[in-house]
Amino acid sequence: MKRLSLTLVLLASVFPHAAPAAEEQDEAAFTVRPIGWVQRTEGRTLIVLDKKYQAGLRGLDGWSHVQVIWWFHKNDTPQRRAVLQVHPRGDQNNPRTGVFACRAPVRPNLIALTLCKVVGVEDNVLEVEKIDAFDGTPVLDLKPFAPGLDSATGVRVPDWAGRR
Amino acid sequence: MKRLSLTLVLLASVFPHAAPAAEEQDEAAFTVRPIGWVQRTEGRTLIVLDKKYQAGLRGLDGWSHVQVIWWFHKNDTPQRRAVLQVHPRGDQNNPRTGVFACRAPVRPNLIALTLCKVVGVEDNVLEVEKIDAFDGTPVLDLKPFAPGLDSATGVRVPDWAGRR
Repeated sequence: MKRLSLTLVLLASVFPHAAPAAEEQDEAAFTVRPIGWVQRTEGRTLIVLDKKYQAGLRGLDGWSHVQVIWWFHKNDTPQRRAVLQVHPRGDQNNPRTGVFACRAPVRPNLIALTLCKVVGVEDNVLEVEKIDAFDGTPVLDLKPFAPGLDSATGVRVPDWAGRR
Repeated sequence: MKRLSLTLVLLASVFPHAAPAAEEQDEAAFTVRPIGWVQRTEGRTLIVLDKKYQAGLRGLDGWSHVQVIWWFHKNDTPQRRAVLQVHPRGDQNNPRTGVFACRAPVRPNLIALTLCKVVGVEDNVLEVEKIDAFDGTPVLDLKPFAPGLDSATGVRVPDWAGRR
C-alpha cells in the first residue's frame, strides 16, 4: 500500500495541472456572511444592511426590482441540509421532486432567492414591497433585476407547478 | 467589571428572545459547499453534480429554465470581497455604482446568479445552453425558473444599464 501511495504522490507531482482530485473537491467550502437582515416594522418590509456595507447600495434606487439572496436560517441543521427530495409545497399529491427542481426551503446550501420590488433606498436601508422571509432573516446579497439577463421566453414548467 | 458582566448575563437570560446583539450579528457566518462544477466539453456546457447530490435533480427536466447559483471563485480574496463600488462593466464612463446595484463579480459574498436554458438532464449531469462562468466554476445551488415568482413587469433600469 505504501508503494501505491508513493506512486500516486509522484504521479500527482508530474501532472500538477490535472483536474482537482475528488478528495480536494469534497473539501471545498466557502464562507458567507450576512450583509444585512430583513426587518418588518409598521407594515413596511426593510432590508437593513450592516452600516459597513452601506456604500454597496449606491445607485440601487435607479432600478425597479432587486433579486434578494438570503439564507433559510431556520433550516440550518445537518438533517435539513441533507434533504434531496420533497413533495413540493408540502403536498403529498405533488410528485417526489429533487430540491434542485423546486424552491423548497431545505437544500444542501440554504440559499433563497426572491425577486422584490424596490420601494426606496435610504442610508443603509432598502425598502421592498414584500418578501417571503421571516423577520430577522439574514440577507447575503442583492442583485438588480436586469431584463436582458433575468427574463426568459418560451418558459415550460411541470404540471404540479402550473396548478397554483 | 465582573459584576457588570454578571448583570448582562442575567439580563440576557431574562430576555432570551431579544434581537441578536450587534456583536452576535457580526459573528454570523454560514458555510456553503459546491454541489457541482461547470464543465465545458466538446462545445457543450455541463453542470456536473457531485454524485451524492444526484437525487436532487429529479424532475428538473420538466422545467425549461434554471437559475444557476455559483461562486466567483477566481475572486475569492479578502481584497476583492471588500470592494463595495465599481464602474459597471469596467467602463469609467459608467457612474460609480454599489456592488449591490450592479452584477459585478466582486462583492462581499461572491454569489453569482445566471438564468440558463435547460438542454437536458442525465444521471448527475445537467446540460445548459450557456453560462457566463469559467470551466471548473463551483456551483452552489439550482432553482427552476418559476414565471410567477421570477418575472417582473414595469421594469426600470438606470441609464448606464440600458445602453448595451
